[in-house]
Amino acid sequence: MTLDFYTNPMSRGQIARWALEETGAPYNEHIISYGPEMKGEAYLAINPMGKVPALKHNGAVVTEAAAICAYLASAFPQSGLAPSAEESADYHRWMFFAAGPMESAISFHSAGFKPTKEQTATFGFGSYEMILDVVKEKLSRDSYACGERFAMADVYLGSQIGFGTQFGTLPKEDVFTAYIERLANRDAFKKAKARDAALIAEMQASKSD
Amino acid sequence: MTLDFYTNPMSRGQIARWALEETGAPYNEHIISYGPEMKGEAYLAINPMGKVPALKHNGAVVTEAAAICAYLASAFPQSGLAPSAEESADYHRWMFFAAGPMESAISFHSAGFKPTKEQTATFGFGSYEMILDVVKEKLSRDSYACGERFAMADVYLGSQIGFGTQFGTLPKEDVFTAYIERLANRDAFKKAKARDAALIAEMQASKSD
Ligand SMILES: N[C@@H](CCC(=O)N[C@@H](CS)C(=O)NCC(=O)O)C(=O)O
Ligand SMILES: N[C@@H](CCC(=O)N[C@@H](CS)C(=O)NCC(=O)O)C(=O)O
Repeated sequence: MTLDFYTNPMSRGQIARWALEETGAPYNEHIISYGPEMKGEAYLAINPMGKVPALKHNGAVVTEAAAICAYLASAFPQSGLAPSAEESADYHRWMFFAAGPMESAISFHSAGFKPTKEQTATFGFGSYEMILDVVKEKLSRDSYACGERFAMADVYLGSQIGFGTQFGTLPKEDVFTAYIERLANRDAFKKAKARDAALIAEMQASKSD
Repeated sequence: MTLDFYTNPMSRGQIARWALEETGAPYNEHIISYGPEMKGEAYLAINPMGKVPALKHNGAVVTEAAAICAYLASAFPQSGLAPSAEESADYHRWMFFAAGPMESAISFHSAGFKPTKEQTATFGFGSYEMILDVVKEKLSRDSYACGERFAMADVYLGSQIGFGTQFGTLPKEDVFTAYIERLANRDAFKKAKARDAALIAEMQASKSD
């Protein structure tokens, strides 16, 4: 039942770490540095994309931050992070919305690319503006992805919104700030972020030696 | 236990229909035409993106083709389309890989946008070439997303590859063609595609009246 977690503190690995802390399960941490190590044979055997995060559980590998979240929720049912039958529609909808169209829209937007009217019909994300409207409407109606209860979908959706507003790829709307404040109050969030912050501080200290 | 399915035969709704047919559950079909109907108040109340497909099950709405696949697999466990504990890592990995990075890469590529070296590190999909290599490697090793058995992840990954090779947004690699042939042999696939083809023929006949 070993969990091996491959990450870099300055990466989407922060999402997976938060998800891991939510399960409460112990895990082995492997810090992979950007560049040769991440693109080297040993790590490519785990994730051929040469990207972090990745997770190994009982010998099976999961890559993709969103997949790691969903996988952990179902592998640790006792943590109550997977949806009930009633929550399942919202859970899947917002998990895939955040990992699919929302991620695409943010990448296109940050690349300065504006889809034509025809592209908004064929591209799965439509446009950056449509995505923003839909997420804002959702979060002004519900406190969490599945309604009034926190679930694993919030780790991914909340991270997407947290990183977006932090890096300026999403606007600092009030609904976003309020959602992130709710999430940042969680013990697992605090524990995960504290570990990544400590690792970043260590890396910076050893650089300036 | 009603399933209401909102689709257009010429759309990603084909993915959701195939998923529905795999469950064997009966469903009500609602054909939504492009333009005013899809962007009208009634349909926007179901999917505020004004896009198809969407599914309503016991009053709850699921949007996003990939979410509909994953939702149905878990809502109809007797269909055997959800993963076993051993298959779960692969299932989540390839479902999210196809809906996230692969979808982004195809959109960027079809828009003629080539990420810079720096963007390949920050964009979740890296580059179109990386995505192709990873999927080709996977399918030259395994017959299906979860190994040697068909699961719901194949409906989404297979559709992504099927549409891609058909529309020329993915190359017609042998591993892709062989994978699609395996999938196209399935009764649910044939039934779903036949229904969409009949609807397309009807639409074309009424247009040329
Ligand atoms: N789709 C992947 C994206 C992972 C990703 O792009 N990770 C970045 C850090 S946030 C990375 O490892 N970049 C290094 C590189 O591509 O060389 C996920 O969601 O996990
Ligand atoms: N991310 C969505 C994309 C849905 C989508 O883009 N559907 C297209 C047809 S394939 C659509 O409805 N376009 C009409 C429009 O945007 O006006 C999914 O996977 O379901």
